[in-house]
Amino acid sequence: MKRTIWWDGQAVTVIDQRYLPHRYVTRRWRTIDDVAEGIRVMQVRGAPLIGVAAAHGVALAMAVRATDQALDAALAQLIATRPTAVNLRNALERIDLDVRPRPLELRAAAARVLSERLADEDAAACRAIGEIGSRLIRDIADRVDRPVQVMTHCNAGWLACVEWGTATAPVYIARERGLAVHVWVSETRPRNQGAALTAWELGQRHVPHTVVVDNAAGHLLRSGLVDLVLVGADRIAANGDVANKVGTYLKALAARDCDVPFYVAAPTTTFDLRAATGAVIPIEERGPNEVTKVYGRADSGHTAGVTITPADTEVRNWGFDVTPARLVSGFLTERGLIPAAPFASAQLLS
Amino acid sequence: MKRTIWWDGQAVTVIDQRYLPHRYVTRRWRTIDDVAEGIRVMQVRGAPLIGVAAAHGVALAMAVRATDQALDAALAQLIATRPTAVNLRNALERIDLDVRPRPLELRAAAARVLSERLADEDAAACRAIGEIGSRLIRDIADRVDRPVQVMTHCNAGWLACVEWGTATAPVYIARERGLAVHVWVSETRPRNQGAALTAWELGQRHVPHTVVVDNAAGHLLRSGLVDLVLVGADRIAANGDVANKVGTYLKALAARDCDVPFYVAAPTTTFDLRAATGAVIPIEERGPNEVTKVYGRADSGHTAGVTITPADTEVRNWGFDVTPARLVSGFLTERGLIPAAPFASAQLLS
Repeated sequence: MKRTIWWDGQAVTVIDQRYLPHRYVTRRWRTIDDVAEGIRVMQVRGAPLIGVAAAHGVALAMAVRATDQALDAALAQLIATRPTAVNLRNALERIDLDVRPRPLELRAAAARVLSERLADEDAAACRAIGEIGSRLIRDIADRVDRPVQVMTHCNAGWLACVEWGTATAPVYIARERGLAVHVWVSETRPRNQGAALTAWELGQRHVPHTVVVDNAAGHLLRSGLVDLVLVGADRIAANGDVANKVGTYLKALAARDCDVPFYVAAPTTTFDLRAATGAVIPIEERGPNEVTKVYGRADSGHTAGVTITPADTEVRNWGFDVTPARLVSGFLTERGLIPAAPFASAQLLS
Repeated sequence: MKRTIWWDGQAVTVIDQRYLPHRYVTRRWRTIDDVAEGIRVMQVRGAPLIGVAAAHGVALAMAVRATDQALDAALAQLIATRPTAVNLRNALERIDLDVRPRPLELRAAAARVLSERLADEDAAACRAIGEIGSRLIRDIADRVDRPVQVMTHCNAGWLACVEWGTATAPVYIARERGLAVHVWVSETRPRNQGAALTAWELGQRHVPHTVVVDNAAGHLLRSGLVDLVLVGADRIAANGDVANKVGTYLKALAARDCDVPFYVAAPTTTFDLRAATGAVIPIEERGPNEVTKVYGRADSGHTAGVTITPADTEVRNWGFDVTPARLVSGFLTERGLIPAAPFASAQLLS
């Protein structure tokens, strides 16, 4: 299966996700500045992928200068790119622990090896999440005489990770096993990662899917058109509260109101046991342009943006929200299915 | 205060809302076909306004030919334009009752007089809703030392009615009384009536407001940034279930989860006592283009559309959802504040 990030000589290549679904563009990162900018402007996004990408950034920095000071600067530059996803911090802490004790001349090689190992581990974790989550789909398939209806939010697919994805991995594995699955894809304003990325990647793999506006989630759930909600996460607090793409909380509320199971799929690198509850997770606020201007393919075939608000309209643009643990049916992790209430965070440490 | 629809000689003039907020364009309807098309393609929209507009359409038809057959055809043509808002049916039934008993030569004049009366009544009802709703805002203003924070959805403003609006009327009246109010405006995909219309009309009247994506409603409510949710309605069933713009149900769930009052503002023409519950209200499904393509102002200054999904993506596009009565704090009507649970529909008949 194709990956979203790979070494290419002395550079790192990624898919520049800002051009999807209309153009498949790759981008070569040659310096840590390229990586930091790429994460910040969302050439790559998705909690697992930005963790892995940051590790690649440290490796690029170490190849130039491997002093403690350079390492400190690299870590500081990368941690500042995006505040909410904890995978970024977790990856940087891990690379710091691995690299700093080594002699200067070995640091670049060690960082590169670790960046590849983190990518491999993420791919393996997502595959394991897929195996575990596919059992939920199989259980539903055993009960119904039609495709299993999964709803997701944003893009927690392979584009958000290295391979497989988190929320989409169970779907891909279920399809490998011959189960019929259909996915309801929420467009996920403001950046439309559902309409642009999830629809694209499901289409690439011939998974039947239908795009709806975010507002339609409640109607779908109340109409009995969804068997299972699967979403990813950017950070999961010690009490099981989940920070994920803004709008996740609304889907969780509707799923609970309609008695539809709501699972959060995430590798254990997304758990932050230092955050007692969701209330202490920093919620990134981004620029107003993501709200006021929508980008897509113009009739000319070129990518263009159109402004949807009156000039000078005031806008706020939070990227995430917090879903309380009480609304989560369980966590799909590479270590198994963890119940959300009462959330057994100790299981993650054992 | 400016109106959204008026007679202009032998024609009817409306604001073509499809061009807002970027251009203020009026349109003259000369025939019933103009009216039916105008309602269908949403030159005008909003439950109260399409009821009044349909009455004007009957008057235009009667001016050409006033037979029973012509009346039947006019009513049938107009009722078919939009299925969910009951104001349309209510207005057509009322004009039928008024016009049909009259001699042929008086029907056109009677229909025109009644169309103007319905417009006046709607304006008066909205003004009364505003008076009643402004008391809710005043009660909050008495408790807090900052502007009262109101969240709305879609456009239930004067553009959706003849004057004042339903959900916005309390805000306008509260401002007349000197109260400080700030409105959180959800963009309201797929047609962005919040970002385009509500933001525009609040701006025209200098009401402070901030646009957010629909997905942000849960985060706003959980963060304590909303004192009161005010929405309109397209049809209210006898048990108090509310059909309104898709996404309303999600806001109602979040308001309840966060203990924020959620009021539905609607004239009594929006109540359908023949619909026992929300389950029997027809939910309009519209074309996929509203989802796949977003219209706005291009950098050139012209209006343009951009496609946000991969080519040939499957889409579903429901225009409305149903909010169960249990999530509604009360109904603001021109006859007063009606509690939602237990919903006293008998009050509407008394």
